[in-house]
Amino acid sequence: MKNKTIKYISLITLILVSNFFVKAQNKVTQKPITIASQGNFSAGGSVIKSEGVFDPLKPWNVSQGGQTRHGDHADVFYQISVKSKKLSMIFLHGYGQSRRSWQTTADGREGFSNIFLRKGYSVYLVDQPGRGEAGQTTKPGQISGTPDDQTWFTQFRIGLYPKFNEGVQFPKDSTSMDQFFRMMTPNTGNIDEATIVNAMSSVMDKSGNGILFTHSAGGSPGWKTAIKNEKIKAVVAYEPGGFTFPEGEEPEGNRGGKGVPMNEFMKLTKIPIVVYYGDYIPTEETNAASLNFWKNVLTTARQWAKIVNSHGGDVTIVHLPELGIKGNTHFLMSDLNNVEVAELLSKWLKEKGLDK
Amino acid sequence: MKNKTIKYISLITLILVSNFFVKAQNKVTQKPITIASQGNFSAGGSVIKSEGVFDPLKPWNVSQGGQTRHGDHADVFYQISVKSKKLSMIFLHGYGQSRRSWQTTADGREGFSNIFLRKGYSVYLVDQPGRGEAGQTTKPGQISGTPDDQTWFTQFRIGLYPKFNEGVQFPKDSTSMDQFFRMMTPNTGNIDEATIVNAMSSVMDKSGNGILFTHSAGGSPGWKTAIKNEKIKAVVAYEPGGFTFPEGEEPEGNRGGKGVPMNEFMKLTKIPIVVYYGDYIPTEETNAASLNFWKNVLTTARQWAKIVNSHGGDVTIVHLPELGIKGNTHFLMSDLNNVEVAELLSKWLKEKGLDK
Repeated sequence: MKNKTIKYISLITLILVSNFFVKAQNKVTQKPITIASQGNFSAGGSVIKSEGVFDPLKPWNVSQGGQTRHGDHADVFYQISVKSKKLSMIFLHGYGQSRRSWQTTADGREGFSNIFLRKGYSVYLVDQPGRGEAGQTTKPGQISGTPDDQTWFTQFRIGLYPKFNEGVQFPKDSTSMDQFFRMMTPNTGNIDEATIVNAMSSVMDKSGNGILFTHSAGGSPGWKTAIKNEKIKAVVAYEPGGFTFPEGEEPEGNRGGKGVPMNEFMKLTKIPIVVYYGDYIPTEETNAASLNFWKNVLTTARQWAKIVNSHGGDVTIVHLPELGIKGNTHFLMSDLNNVEVAELLSKWLKEKGLDK
Repeated sequence: MKNKTIKYISLITLILVSNFFVKAQNKVTQKPITIASQGNFSAGGSVIKSEGVFDPLKPWNVSQGGQTRHGDHADVFYQISVKSKKLSMIFLHGYGQSRRSWQTTADGREGFSNIFLRKGYSVYLVDQPGRGEAGQTTKPGQISGTPDDQTWFTQFRIGLYPKFNEGVQFPKDSTSMDQFFRMMTPNTGNIDEATIVNAMSSVMDKSGNGILFTHSAGGSPGWKTAIKNEKIKAVVAYEPGGFTFPEGEEPEGNRGGKGVPMNEFMKLTKIPIVVYYGDYIPTEETNAASLNFWKNVLTTARQWAKIVNSHGGDVTIVHLPELGIKGNTHFLMSDLNNVEVAELLSKWLKEKGLDK
């Protein structure tokens, strides 16, 4: 009986102590963020002009012409760390998303920009041309209003809607789902990849040397920006959908567009690159179109890494389940285990000497 | 001769000392910003559904229906001050703008959110439904691509394009002008005022008690939100374009829409309100349509203040040139003298006991 009581007390002590550590950890995460400065700027873009003469006394006669429209730029929100690391982090979102992908999570926890700001990195968060606060474009278009939330839920490997994937690292409560769907924001114009690459290169000119982060559809313009601008000293790509191959070596189905001349491609061999993929990517064809899509992407990623590395490059493809990290959706950087995903990256940054 | 030398030395000392103070002041502005937490959320909005059945195995068959679209919400970026004041500041932008209006200036100085964050206020920066990162709407539309930068330059009283107003508190260099034009971002859908008011009221439910800041076209939904949500404890309106009158008392040309029942209007008499207008607003009709527009708005503002105050309200209309503060455009909060404009507001906040 006495032993039993002691056991109970031990158990209670253990619970209290664990609880204390959990609280202590929460408190650590709640340490203030100290930033030297923060602000916004636009980078890159173009200007169109209308024929005619502008009459400043009748400024609303827009049809009279003689005016300009500035558009197609990237919009950047930056936060500079006190005693900042040498390399900044530049974040480019994926399809249908904005910089918010990197700032927060569906259930309101801290996103990657906060996590790495706390580690002393300065962050530059981009809305690409024609997205979010970079909405002004020179070739605007019609926005579709077709309901498609369930398409994205499924494509992003949260589950096969309405089913959540088993063990998925994604909050299932209705408030989080509501917040998640509302993170989608449409293209405001017809923006091609070259426009995004030009704007991203201008972002790098303003940010200075840095590590480019891309997510999903941001991957493809990301590789091209790394080729174009030497200020990119490393690329961290979360689930890129397409890759930049040497001309003529593009595999079938690659979503990264036409290849580039070998001398340009070779620039990708000069910087360390890490590419991460989450869970629920099958190795064999299934009956689910979304899963087959990702199977093909991961296959292409491995082919691409092989070619870059065969030319002297330093690409690491990380398929998280192979490291025992399970349940990740397409949104690795905001999934429930995003702190673990960030820690994994921190190790890689350290290994490559990018964390000075 | 000796006296003259001393005078010169005094003058040099004075210059050096002033210079030192200027530098010291710059240094003070450069003190790190310490924030307890920051993040993003959506507030309010609606959901539409398409008829049909969604097939998760073919998620791209959008025309098959059975899906939702979440839209019409506000998107909020917040930063919580360490030892925050009791009242937060909630910022709503004007026409064609996003929250960036409040975050920075055309020439990259600190905007109001930084200035007041440094004073210990927590800030909530809104992109209204169908604008910026709140781009997803349930009634999306066609975006116009007509060049109209010069319309806005003129309407915003920077000058009668291409002429800058004499003594204007606006940077004239081409980089700043480029940045200014690129702050414009279009409506992504057909959003009515009620939708903005509903979303803003949901923002207040999340922010808690606060001071609502509005700019320009944000003014009109701002008054209606203050009527709807008691968490708004004061309104600071920079150049609101329209006002909420009691039903039947709307003056001709008021851009604030139909009046509201007297019992609703009376809610505006329960909180302190301050309204600021800048320079270049004529007292008589001119040959410039943009200036006449603002003349009429200021006249309406004064009529409105009179009615609110006659019912026991506390509205102050401040026309800056009357205080000797000259050269302000429509963008008082980001003009070259925005620190002075902020200081003026700080005095009012203190006077009304809103700075605790």
